Amino acid sequence: MNLEKELQNKIDLLTKPHGSLGLLERTALKYGMIKNSLCPKLPENKKVFVFSGDHGITESGTSAYPKEVTVQMVTNFLNGGAAINVFSKHNNAEVFIVDAGVDYDFEPHKNLIVKKVGYGTKNFTKEKAMSLSDAEKSIKFGRDIASEAIKNGGDLFAIGDMGIGNTATATAICCAAGIPIDSIIDIGTVINSDTLSKKRELIKNAVEFHSPFENPIDIISKVGSYCIGEMIGFMLECTDQKVPFVTDGYPVTSAAFIAYKINPEVKKYMFAGHKSAVKGHEVLLNLLEAEPLLNLGMRLGEGTGAVLSFSIIEAAVKMLNNMASFESAGISTGDEL
Amino acid sequence: MNLEKELQNKIDLLTKPHGSLGLLERTALKYGMIKNSLCPKLPENKKVFVFSGDHGITESGTSAYPKEVTVQMVTNFLNGGAAINVFSKHNNAEVFIVDAGVDYDFEPHKNLIVKKVGYGTKNFTKEKAMSLSDAEKSIKFGRDIASEAIKNGGDLFAIGDMGIGNTATATAICCAAGIPIDSIIDIGTVINSDTLSKKRELIKNAVEFHSPFENPIDIISKVGSYCIGEMIGFMLECTDQKVPFVTDGYPVTSAAFIAYKINPEVKKYMFAGHKSAVKGHEVLLNLLEAEPLLNLGMRLGEGTGAVLSFSIIEAAVKMLNNMASFESAGISTGDEL
Repeated sequence: MNLEKELQNKIDLLTKPHGSLGLLERTALKYGMIKNSLCPKLPENKKVFVFSGDHGITESGTSAYPKEVTVQMVTNFLNGGAAINVFSKHNNAEVFIVDAGVDYDFEPHKNLIVKKVGYGTKNFTKEKAMSLSDAEKSIKFGRDIASEAIKNGGDLFAIGDMGIGNTATATAICCAAGIPIDSIIDIGTVINSDTLSKKRELIKNAVEFHSPFENPIDIISKVGSYCIGEMIGFMLECTDQKVPFVTDGYPVTSAAFIAYKINPEVKKYMFAGHKSAVKGHEVLLNLLEAEPLLNLGMRLGEGTGAVLSFSIIEAAVKMLNNMASFESAGISTGDEL
Repeated sequence: MNLEKELQNKIDLLTKPHGSLGLLERTALKYGMIKNSLCPKLPENKKVFVFSGDHGITESGTSAYPKEVTVQMVTNFLNGGAAINVFSKHNNAEVFIVDAGVDYDFEPHKNLIVKKVGYGTKNFTKEKAMSLSDAEKSIKFGRDIASEAIKNGGDLFAIGDMGIGNTATATAICCAAGIPIDSIIDIGTVINSDTLSKKRELIKNAVEFHSPFENPIDIISKVGSYCIGEMIGFMLECTDQKVPFVTDGYPVTSAAFIAYKINPEVKKYMFAGHKSAVKGHEVLLNLLEAEPLLNLGMRLGEGTGAVLSFSIIEAAVKMLNNMASFESAGISTGDEL
């Protein structure tokens, strides 16, 4: 019997009707497969990485917040006052803020990882967001961050993002990868319908302007961002090193979609932390065949949905390891009916 | 400004776009209202109550499991091997098993609360499930259990149920309370479509046989169960004493629906832990205007969905208490756009 069948068999023999714990059962199975064990160890070193950067697209006015908010929010993260700080502490995970390309130089901080590809991308409605070599650099930086985190004992990661303009960028890379814009265009935070129409036109035109796209690196270079590139690299490295990671909302999942195009194995190591209220998110989750662990109508980003789901993943692992079986508990299975 | 507006205002000024934490924000608001505070204390003494009992309806063969499983599962709970034990420990809550009317005498156990109304209800397809005075007794016992738990410091409760035949009973009380059977009839655990048709006919005929129903107590007496009665009493007492409780799946929510018919204030103290895979559950949640915190396709019962949601409720309270405001963090609000 292979491990997958053995895990399924173990789950089926726990004291509950077959399949009655739904997604928890599938989560336990996946976690066991990743850890290659019938009794996988609980995560002991959980880390959250919030990839931050500025996007040239903000000068086109697609966002509700001014670009300055990226710097202010990173400062808020480092001061421990943001939602991601509160939720990470709640679930006993350490938060790292990655400066992938904020247009600002922060003071050094123990939770700040500076992997700056540049000081904000260029406005992709007018030119390439970054050079091909910067796109490659962003992937490498993301891989380096994951590699270092794994070396330091990290065994479960939440991936989040912060950057005014990130949903516009996410939509552009998805369109560049062939997803129809009207299935995914939505407000990021709070913009009105005029701004939304403008955002749609800008992205549609930009994708047409930069077409055709040769490959994922070409997509990142033309309409991506430093954050997106680093998140893709991070996921690719986790996949190579067989370490599970949890995605957050729409921008992070757009990165997962591109990472999956580069290496389909990505799917095996990815848990979908939540389904956000952003329209395109569900489309991406379906394309990745990923079942979201939470569905709370959130649309914040930062990794908040990802880190909140840690509690559910851990419950699933404990189910697998700590529940009695029908046999050990001496219970009728109902199979005779 | 009244407390509700003050709470909403506080939530809106936290460092995140308005409404971007979705259901977490509404959960924090509700919790603050229950605790009558802008900075409500986190729950410090979480308890889970699993109401167990036998149902005469099982002799009609509506369930996948034999009646004996009720006793076996209670024993499993007391031995710590069931899902509810694993998940309660995970979320730092103590589990109590209530013997509301199992057809068996258990050995005393520190986590067993014996509040036995009888040794299993009668088969409501043929006669009243219990006398009116037993129905009243079940409500009183439920109130007593909640009262004692609150006296002992309990400040957040999960309510679960275990009893072969409980979904059939839940469906009967809902129909008796006016909900059309075809909107809620479903398998409880795992039965085939023939058994489901039979279950539908049995319940439909039983409800017709016992009609009309004078009031909620009459419903409990004719087609209810000891568990259902005690859960209703438990919820009514929590409501009177303003202590929050979390509902689990379909049977528990059917009890909440009847409790709400007795006292509409019940809704204010109730959190819906999850939406189960049982069809009728969503109907009941909608009638109670309750938004489920989790949606994992679970259909186990025992309080598993309720207790797993504790982590989300606590995260919501921490959001309210521990996040920075735009002002304290010096961040642009975006309101100028």
